[in-house]
Amino acid sequence: MSLYTQLFYSDTVNALFSDSETIAQMIRVEVYLAQAQANKGLFSESIVKTIKEMTTVTTIDIEKLKQDILLGGNAAIPLVKQLTQIVKNKDPEAAKFIHLGATSQDIVDTAMVLQIKDYINWLELKIILLETQLIRLTQKHRETITIGRTLLQQAKPTTFGFKTAGWLEAISRSKQRVQEIKQRVLVLQLGGAVGNGNANITIEIQEELARLLSLKPSFSWHSHRDNLAEMAGVLGVLSGTLGKIAKDISLLMQTEVGEVFEGAADGKGGSSTMPHKRNPVTCAAILANSNRLPHLVATMLSAMPQEQERSAGLWHSEWEVLTGIMQLTAGSVEKSIALIEGLEVDENRMLENLELTNGLIYAENLTLALAQKIGKSQAHEYIEKACKKAIIEKKHLKAVVLETNIDLTDLDSLFNPKNAIGLSLELVDQVLSKYQ
Amino acid sequence: MSLYTQLFYSDTVNALFSDSETIAQMIRVEVYLAQAQANKGLFSESIVKTIKEMTTVTTIDIEKLKQDILLGGNAAIPLVKQLTQIVKNKDPEAAKFIHLGATSQDIVDTAMVLQIKDYINWLELKIILLETQLIRLTQKHRETITIGRTLLQQAKPTTFGFKTAGWLEAISRSKQRVQEIKQRVLVLQLGGAVGNGNANITIEIQEELARLLSLKPSFSWHSHRDNLAEMAGVLGVLSGTLGKIAKDISLLMQTEVGEVFEGAADGKGGSSTMPHKRNPVTCAAILANSNRLPHLVATMLSAMPQEQERSAGLWHSEWEVLTGIMQLTAGSVEKSIALIEGLEVDENRMLENLELTNGLIYAENLTLALAQKIGKSQAHEYIEKACKKAIIEKKHLKAVVLETNIDLTDLDSLFNPKNAIGLSLELVDQVLSKYQ
Amino acid sequence: MSLYTQLFYSDTVNALFSDSETIAQMIRVEVYLAQAQANKGLFSESIVKTIKEMTTVTTIDIEKLKQDILLGGNAAIPLVKQLTQIVKNKDPEAAKFIHLGATSQDIVDTAMVLQIKDYINWLELKIILLETQLIRLTQKHRETITIGRTLLQQAKPTTFGFKTAGWLEAISRSKQRVQEIKQRVLVLQLGGAVGNGNANITIEIQEELARLLSLKPSFSWHSHRDNLAEMAGVLGVLSGTLGKIAKDISLLMQTEVGEVFEGAADGKGGSSTMPHKRNPVTCAAILANSNRLPHLVATMLSAMPQEQERSAGLWHSEWEVLTGIMQLTAGSVEKSIALIEGLEVDENRMLENLELTNGLIYAENLTLALAQKIGKSQAHEYIEKACKKAIIEKKHLKAVVLETNIDLTDLDSLFNPKNAIGLSLELVDQVLSKYQ
Amino acid sequence: MSLYTQLFYSDTVNALFSDSETIAQMIRVEVYLAQAQANKGLFSESIVKTIKEMTTVTTIDIEKLKQDILLGGNAAIPLVKQLTQIVKNKDPEAAKFIHLGATSQDIVDTAMVLQIKDYINWLELKIILLETQLIRLTQKHRETITIGRTLLQQAKPTTFGFKTAGWLEAISRSKQRVQEIKQRVLVLQLGGAVGNGNANITIEIQEELARLLSLKPSFSWHSHRDNLAEMAGVLGVLSGTLGKIAKDISLLMQTEVGEVFEGAADGKGGSSTMPHKRNPVTCAAILANSNRLPHLVATMLSAMPQEQERSAGLWHSEWEVLTGIMQLTAGSVEKSIALIEGLEVDENRMLENLELTNGLIYAENLTLALAQKIGKSQAHEYIEKACKKAIIEKKHLKAVVLETNIDLTDLDSLFNPKNAIGLSLELVDQVLSKYQ
Repeated sequence: MSLYTQLFYSDTVNALFSDSETIAQMIRVEVYLAQAQANKGLFSESIVKTIKEMTTVTTIDIEKLKQDILLGGNAAIPLVKQLTQIVKNKDPEAAKFIHLGATSQDIVDTAMVLQIKDYINWLELKIILLETQLIRLTQKHRETITIGRTLLQQAKPTTFGFKTAGWLEAISRSKQRVQEIKQRVLVLQLGGAVGNGNANITIEIQEELARLLSLKPSFSWHSHRDNLAEMAGVLGVLSGTLGKIAKDISLLMQTEVGEVFEGAADGKGGSSTMPHKRNPVTCAAILANSNRLPHLVATMLSAMPQEQERSAGLWHSEWEVLTGIMQLTAGSVEKSIALIEGLEVDENRMLENLELTNGLIYAENLTLALAQKIGKSQAHEYIEKACKKAIIEKKHLKAVVLETNIDLTDLDSLFNPKNAIGLSLELVDQVLSKYQ
Repeated sequence: MSLYTQLFYSDTVNALFSDSETIAQMIRVEVYLAQAQANKGLFSESIVKTIKEMTTVTTIDIEKLKQDILLGGNAAIPLVKQLTQIVKNKDPEAAKFIHLGATSQDIVDTAMVLQIKDYINWLELKIILLETQLIRLTQKHRETITIGRTLLQQAKPTTFGFKTAGWLEAISRSKQRVQEIKQRVLVLQLGGAVGNGNANITIEIQEELARLLSLKPSFSWHSHRDNLAEMAGVLGVLSGTLGKIAKDISLLMQTEVGEVFEGAADGKGGSSTMPHKRNPVTCAAILANSNRLPHLVATMLSAMPQEQERSAGLWHSEWEVLTGIMQLTAGSVEKSIALIEGLEVDENRMLENLELTNGLIYAENLTLALAQKIGKSQAHEYIEKACKKAIIEKKHLKAVVLETNIDLTDLDSLFNPKNAIGLSLELVDQVLSKYQ
Repeated sequence: MSLYTQLFYSDTVNALFSDSETIAQMIRVEVYLAQAQANKGLFSESIVKTIKEMTTVTTIDIEKLKQDILLGGNAAIPLVKQLTQIVKNKDPEAAKFIHLGATSQDIVDTAMVLQIKDYINWLELKIILLETQLIRLTQKHRETITIGRTLLQQAKPTTFGFKTAGWLEAISRSKQRVQEIKQRVLVLQLGGAVGNGNANITIEIQEELARLLSLKPSFSWHSHRDNLAEMAGVLGVLSGTLGKIAKDISLLMQTEVGEVFEGAADGKGGSSTMPHKRNPVTCAAILANSNRLPHLVATMLSAMPQEQERSAGLWHSEWEVLTGIMQLTAGSVEKSIALIEGLEVDENRMLENLELTNGLIYAENLTLALAQKIGKSQAHEYIEKACKKAIIEKKHLKAVVLETNIDLTDLDSLFNPKNAIGLSLELVDQVLSKYQ
Repeated sequence: MSLYTQLFYSDTVNALFSDSETIAQMIRVEVYLAQAQANKGLFSESIVKTIKEMTTVTTIDIEKLKQDILLGGNAAIPLVKQLTQIVKNKDPEAAKFIHLGATSQDIVDTAMVLQIKDYINWLELKIILLETQLIRLTQKHRETITIGRTLLQQAKPTTFGFKTAGWLEAISRSKQRVQEIKQRVLVLQLGGAVGNGNANITIEIQEELARLLSLKPSFSWHSHRDNLAEMAGVLGVLSGTLGKIAKDISLLMQTEVGEVFEGAADGKGGSSTMPHKRNPVTCAAILANSNRLPHLVATMLSAMPQEQERSAGLWHSEWEVLTGIMQLTAGSVEKSIALIEGLEVDENRMLENLELTNGLIYAENLTLALAQKIGKSQAHEYIEKACKKAIIEKKHLKAVVLETNIDLTDLDSLFNPKNAIGLSLELVDQVLSKYQ
């Protein structure tokens, strides 16, 4: 972690992937492997007891382990060496049963899956929190009229709740994706040297260890990394949606727009020499992460064509990257919850901004109304002319229409944004109804 | 498409995404939109009939359309213009009902979803074909003994069917993923200018059009592209698995390994001046695609933080990229089917290669057998010494064991690869049983 | 090319990379190879003459060639076959000297380098044109006062010419980079089967062919692709800068900002139902390309670890990608020239926007002026208080200062943006002086 | 940094980018800024003296600083706050002159450039070391005959020195690139709030600070990141070349090839249960890095279209990524030096492997020799037939030739690999001559 831990990450999730937690999970796999083997009669329960008692993360010399990774190329090799020595000091016989029949990748992969499991548990709760905030925001601003913008141009009126309903829908789809990948990603890795098992890694031991760790058993996937790459993609998509929300908010916070703001905190986003500034600091952090995630996902995909029964390099390239994907996404999720929770909405400014085009955003309304009287083509021609006049003379379209002989009554209604929001309310209600 | 159409792509799939097919799908959306609006009483069926009769891809001036994209920035704008003119020539009244209430992105996106639907139909059939070939290959080589290799080193014996069972499992997971994304990706886009509908784009018209096109209705996703990015990821994962298979085969085809070969075709992969060569040409094409896909997937993810109600650029960046992802994956799938179907396996060479380490791959077998007689530590020490001797003196381990006073009987059995394949057969059977 | 040829690409550059042009360049390499070999005495000039006469791109059956690529895996193999047959029909003896000693990659790579050479020639001229437009724009708006924005917030005044001077500087650095890579990328590939030459590919023949093609001779780089990856990176950087310029312009075109506009063309960027819209269509195209380029560059980098003397797949993955990089960058360059050339600047709106913060952008000016009278700390405190009051009461800061007992004279000068643009003019002049 | 610090990184370079070193460089920029301003008469030297004395990295509360980054969004804001407080405690007057006229990005960027400078100094020395090892290896194996392989197939003989000469050439080109980018990347960032300077950031102060820090002054590049992206690309290219070398070595280390080995170290790359294994652990680490780098480079390119005068997110996304690029490349460079230095070459195995095709690799030699006697066409036909016979009957080509009536004398010479290495020696000498 860097100087920027607080800006881009979640402390809770960083802790899940700390060195000592990673080692603790690897030890857990080794201990439960012995348990599974004892359960299936390979050796006595007392040996498991000894192993269990002796091997905890605090007994490990982590610095030495990190040095020794250089020799074997992964963390399990020096860990097994240390574990074996620790147990041997107490009971040489028990030491022989550590890591029995397993290969180092079995341990590294399964420990990582256990971390992923903890991570997904955390993530699912956080996504629900984010949904809750978005539901609240959408309910509150169901009728808050504002302009919709396409290609960065004012287009037509909508409601702010309609915008946030779109955010909510996208987050809910990510929740569904996370739910779906669990069946594929929360699987045991236990195959031995080339994945095909051996006398100490039997099918029933695979099943027993899976049961003990609450994972699914699986055909060995030492060099088939599709499930991890899929998970990376799912997190990349989530991060992309969070980036889209942050992008919207940062644009709405522009000085010239000023419709929505990150919640204020003492000293946050401000500048002593530029008191008018309200920097989208949280949005910037989320956007930074969403600029990085796609490339990290691609790294996982690039790592997929792994050679034969275990890769020389591609496997190794996954370790920091997959962790990074989970950590950065976690940071974005946590920050997004805070962002949505604290979001300030300036409904007046939204109404003011609706007037910036001098009524031109209602042109289509007028055309439709006029068409019922004089036919479509004629109506279109008249209103188009009026719009041009309004633009050139910098007048409000309503004034131009009044000046001209255009036969329209009830102009106030035609220029009322409430009558120009289409089905916003119905569509918002349709979304919200799913959460009741 | 380039010079290399045949090498990297599928003709069938390229045709699905041709200019004329893309335009045909957009026209289809426009026609069915009118149909849906007529069905819901917005105008008479005779207008739809006129529109339907007049608007086919052959009536479109595609070159002019491509030129005009420059003005509006997407293909629907000039298409609607041409369609309107074509219908107007016949029936000026009917022309007014083309594209009624819709926005150009509604048309572009829904047409693309229709193309995706055709694509997924094609893809699912092809994946089943690939599975079928892999099942056949796995059945055939269930017992074909060969060496497993980790980090490009010979490790321990396995069966070739065990290797291909791993390929099969990964492909089946991709099949499942494709199945799962359909619910999210095969959805209608119909929201009008800023996505919130209008008098001509009501909820019931959305539902009617969805019904007519056999898509799911959806809250508008003009600037929420998570479903497309997810699909890109799923195809990227599939391509990664195909890359892994091609990588394995290309390594097994090496002159020094020579265990497996791409099917021969006249003039394929050969060299007139180097008659010994058998180039993995099909593998190279698949590997080329799998080197490109991760980056194209990342492009889709990078395109996600789209501004407000429609993006100025990120949306546009999806068009060629998403098509490219589908086309390249299709190429790899088609080529992989041919590759697996035609694969030649040299079982004798596999057996010969098992002898390359002079019996060292059986060292663990010996240790386990000896341990039962003289205990684990002693056994380990003896066999380790024997191995070192075998390496230094370049002798077969069996010869060294015979020379030494190591108390092992039934050496033939210990050095028999059939006794060193772990649970290969049971695990292969477990996989195959899913497909019966 | 797709439906979107006109939107994202340059016709001129697309022509450089057409199938027939690619084949023409490969033929050129074959013909000049024979010429070089004849020049060095390997065979008679009359043979070269025959080869030269017989082999032109029009004699090639391109469709058949594309089909046959499937067998050999690259375009040179079927091309040589066709060329040989064509010459053989006329002169069987001459036919034997086609492609003498060369390997297919020699032809494919050198032909590509020749295309790159044409491309760079085109590109350098276009960059100069772009520079010229940026110089003009910078000169014109050297003193055009506008607000500088950081994190999408109004910060402090600057001039529009200062902004465009930054664009100009970046483009000039890209010009320099393109200049620098020519020494490495414009090199001959001619090594024969494994790169180490042979009786027909001697060092002097390498030098002669290089001379004839105006390339530099080089140690063979069949599997060392650093020069191509470097070029990809340089184009990626250029595309990134063009993206930055397009991003700026698209933001300045926002309805709420309205300071700068893409040049109008009939029907361009407008909407019949939304007359107020002025979509940044050209910016969108450039931004789309700049979203794609980074990933294409990464593909070239991912393709670098090519196996041994020629890669099985990574080399193949370069072909369409490198071409795509050049074509998309070309599109962006051409579009950027038009964009800058046609750019419309609304100087009045710039001045109006300077007033949006009610004078707060001048707060630091006031503090500095006041500090000279009453000391820094006191000054800071007073002005901070005034700013808060201005924000809360929605008053202009000048009004608040006048209301309060703040001892500042010459307020008009302090609130005059001309006095708040720092060294804009000097710095712009420094930049412009480089081009005189 | 993670568990895998030793495996993927360089300790020395990691130290250059530690939290405290990063902060120390930022402090350095602040102190020298004050020095430059004093030198140019803005305030007295004694103030600089106080600032210099009070502000060192040890006085900074790094944990607090990291927490406070959350508020302002970058590291300079809380640093300046702490520095100001520290100096204020000693001399309130001096405190006012810290960070005078600068913006936080000036400090963050210039400090990073100073780190880059240290990094490049380190890197250039290491590249020279790597070159030296490659020169030594190339000299030693100038004549070591081995097979060249294309598409993973044995092709034609070459020398091992010829292969390593290609590695050397590519590394030297990277050295040149690093040299060239220094002019663009080692530049000062000092522009104030929106880059255009102010009363305290004048052109002469920019020049003075540049002089003091031994950087080049520059037009502000707050939102123009082309130089950084270019540097990222150059490091990505270097990493790609290192990946290519590691890929070659890992392939040559295969059990079935066995020509070249990573230097042995106690416990390195071995396996107690698989004594025959010699895992390419160092290659795997380098290949892992080279799988990650392309995507990190792409992140820098994706970060280029930064908004206006300072970006909201893209700038932030650079920080950890650019550091990561430098650190991973450094790891690969250090490991490559050790790899090349310790490389073991089995010349006998190389000769043995030349025999694996039963003489077919000499087919072209025979054809050429025979052609001189009986003409090209006839010669080709005869030898092709002989080769087919050799393949089908699994005989050595020489035996087949002897059996048949092919009129060739001096067969030993034609089947001698020394006569089949083309210009390997001359081309190696050409490369080596550059370094003498």
